Amino acid sequence: MTTVKLIKVKEDIQADNDLLAQRLRLQLKEQKTFLINLMSSPGAGKTSLLLQTTALMTKDFRMAVIEADIDSSVDAERIADSGTHAIQLQTDGFCHLDVPMVQQGLSSLDSTVLDLIFIENVGNLVCPAEFDTGAALNVMILSVPEGDDKPLKYPLMFSVCDVLIVNKIDYLGSSLTDFDLSLLEKRVRKINKDIKIFQVSSRTGEGIGGWTDWLTAKVSEHNS
Amino acid sequence: MTTVKLIKVKEDIQADNDLLAQRLRLQLKEQKTFLINLMSSPGAGKTSLLLQTTALMTKDFRMAVIEADIDSSVDAERIADSGTHAIQLQTDGFCHLDVPMVQQGLSSLDSTVLDLIFIENVGNLVCPAEFDTGAALNVMILSVPEGDDKPLKYPLMFSVCDVLIVNKIDYLGSSLTDFDLSLLEKRVRKINKDIKIFQVSSRTGEGIGGWTDWLTAKVSEHNS
Repeated sequence: MTTVKLIKVKEDIQADNDLLAQRLRLQLKEQKTFLINLMSSPGAGKTSLLLQTTALMTKDFRMAVIEADIDSSVDAERIADSGTHAIQLQTDGFCHLDVPMVQQGLSSLDSTVLDLIFIENVGNLVCPAEFDTGAALNVMILSVPEGDDKPLKYPLMFSVCDVLIVNKIDYLGSSLTDFDLSLLEKRVRKINKDIKIFQVSSRTGEGIGGWTDWLTAKVSEHNS
Repeated sequence: MTTVKLIKVKEDIQADNDLLAQRLRLQLKEQKTFLINLMSSPGAGKTSLLLQTTALMTKDFRMAVIEADIDSSVDAERIADSGTHAIQLQTDGFCHLDVPMVQQGLSSLDSTVLDLIFIENVGNLVCPAEFDTGAALNVMILSVPEGDDKPLKYPLMFSVCDVLIVNKIDYLGSSLTDFDLSLLEKRVRKINKDIKIFQVSSRTGEGIGGWTDWLTAKVSEHNS
């Protein structure tokens, strides 16, 4: 009984959230602000990718980062130390962000003067996939040490994302992993045939330029 | 409004679940079956650890594994291929297991003749920490590539676990990671000073014997 009740409430919330997300997406399009929702497992490298990405894009765009964490503000501090404006949302146990939470973040930034805002969602391959944040682009990171079987286990996350960034590709040359990139791609394309895939190492910087060039074009097109 | 409503329902469900969990724990104690709840991020190595663990413990105990996944049954197939009885629970989008789901798993095993049952929970450091499964022991895996900062970000998971298994320690010798084991331990002990910590590599087998020796003693004590 109680379980059925939970599902019902969750569906209501998601329906509301979907409407709010569409409205936010339109508003951000009008004000020429590009919002990206970045998702992954814990430790896949969201913050490191953001540091590399903002370093390359800071010459072209006015940017900020909205960090979401259950607790702590270590990620926001790392971003702020690099010179990009960052705010921390503590989700107090919530396993995902929804639009009202994102709006709280946006209202504490002066988002109208920003070209590009990154959301670093809670580290989780399940719940964030279920909630539209209003972003123009959903991006997920899968890191090589997590294994090439993740599309089989978390298909919703792979299906809702526009971009897959395969991170920690510097691990591929090592005997520590038997990760198979072509097998991964085959599994991902079965779920989401149009997904854009980048291979990067946030540690060495390899592949980051290809990703930021592509993103720069996307942001310019959206904000024009 | 809707958000507040969700929290209320969630709390009711958790209160019910806590009672069910206590009842299940007593029942399993009486029937001399030891239930372990194994949790981690996606790709930290739960299935690989289970394969190594059951291989070493099969001479002493009658065992089974309850696998939980959003979708797919690849993990249960890997376990079953190794000769240990395994069943797959598909959670259909749920990000965690609760007691009624565990009971569904137990009822499809003949749990009364089993000494030791492992639950492989959904790969997630957030939601599974909030729901008692009725297990006698909560065990989490943190893998080296995820980073030593995870206790700062997912404190609840580290606080509810009796055991932390640091997996993929074969990565420590590589230049690919700057993971600091003593820093990790300091951060973990701040949240949970009595947690038992093992260092293993499920790939090479290093450290597995120490873990299974300890677990063998625990199971024997519980089932005596």
